[in-house]
Amino acid sequence: MPQQRRAQLTRRAILTAAATEFDLVGYEAAALNAILRRSGTTKGAFYFHFTSKGAVAEALVEDHAAGLAALRREWLGRGLDPLSTAVGLTVEAARRVEQDVVRRAGLLLACRRPGAFSDGWDGLIDRLLHESAEAGQLRPSADPAAVARVVHAGLVGAHKIGADFSGLAERFAEIWRVVLAGVAREDVLRRPEVLAQT
Amino acid sequence: MPQQRRAQLTRRAILTAAATEFDLVGYEAAALNAILRRSGTTKGAFYFHFTSKGAVAEALVEDHAAGLAALRREWLGRGLDPLSTAVGLTVEAARRVEQDVVRRAGLLLACRRPGAFSDGWDGLIDRLLHESAEAGQLRPSADPAAVARVVHAGLVGAHKIGADFSGLAERFAEIWRVVLAGVAREDVLRRPEVLAQT
Repeated sequence: MPQQRRAQLTRRAILTAAATEFDLVGYEAAALNAILRRSGTTKGAFYFHFTSKGAVAEALVEDHAAGLAALRREWLGRGLDPLSTAVGLTVEAARRVEQDVVRRAGLLLACRRPGAFSDGWDGLIDRLLHESAEAGQLRPSADPAAVARVVHAGLVGAHKIGADFSGLAERFAEIWRVVLAGVAREDVLRRPEVLAQT
Repeated sequence: MPQQRRAQLTRRAILTAAATEFDLVGYEAAALNAILRRSGTTKGAFYFHFTSKGAVAEALVEDHAAGLAALRREWLGRGLDPLSTAVGLTVEAARRVEQDVVRRAGLLLACRRPGAFSDGWDGLIDRLLHESAEAGQLRPSADPAAVARVVHAGLVGAHKIGADFSGLAERFAEIWRVVLAGVAREDVLRRPEVLAQT
């Protein structure tokens, strides 16, 4: 195995082990020794990649942010209508967090930072709902800015309530179903692609 | 002034001063001396009422919980229809938190505790929405349990996003307006009492 590839695998093993420890006992209580044991790496290998437990946390937050940015680019590049994009992107982001301990740890660590809830989701949801309104996907009575604020609050709240994130994607989907029932045009709601992700 | 009344005023002055300090600099950074100075009480008077800063925090949480319980009893005793009760109670709870530094501090301190988001609101909103469905206030297509989860998530999220709580009541009202547009029966939405609080 080429050396660079091996280094990548070691880094990934440390991140996964740390994320799992943080998930089990919390960031503060997670011991470096437990992370090393779980990752099957030596202290030397660890310090080749990271200076401290805090640096691992930093990497988890950065990897999570990079993964989210890639997911957003992917969904925005699909050429779907704006409402399907908003629904599909947010529900898939939740599904990834739910299924992947590394992403989950990245999100939880990011949430501990100041300004955690203005991380771009509010702006993105607002933009996609304004585009939905312009594309005639919302009822004329719906205020896209208000709908965006309500959906964003729901997503943030669903995060905070379900501390272990299980069922998060289904809760996100439910928020869209309930909210869109009153704000999307009926023919849009009947189109399979809009709520396909829910 | 009777001694008991004076003691109550002193206790209240300490709680208000502590809440204001917590609001300004956060619980950890708030110094006992600053609280004493702000409350205009002596150390002796303080220790007559409280054993420590932690005990003041405890009292703020308890007073907040008691205030909420009284507010719930008051709204549930008004004999309004269940949907108007749900909307009016939650929006007024937000307004009180927004306007009163003592309630705000109690809520913020309560939110730092484990299980903070299953404090009875979820059960109460769920119950009132089931009653709304039984009373024919919701459309037949609306699932009251799902609507309750979405509203509760929205309220929790609105709390977390607006760190300083300004405009919280208006955000709560907006959540009800947007959600009810799709789930309440049209004639119910037209009745002035349902959305009067929003």
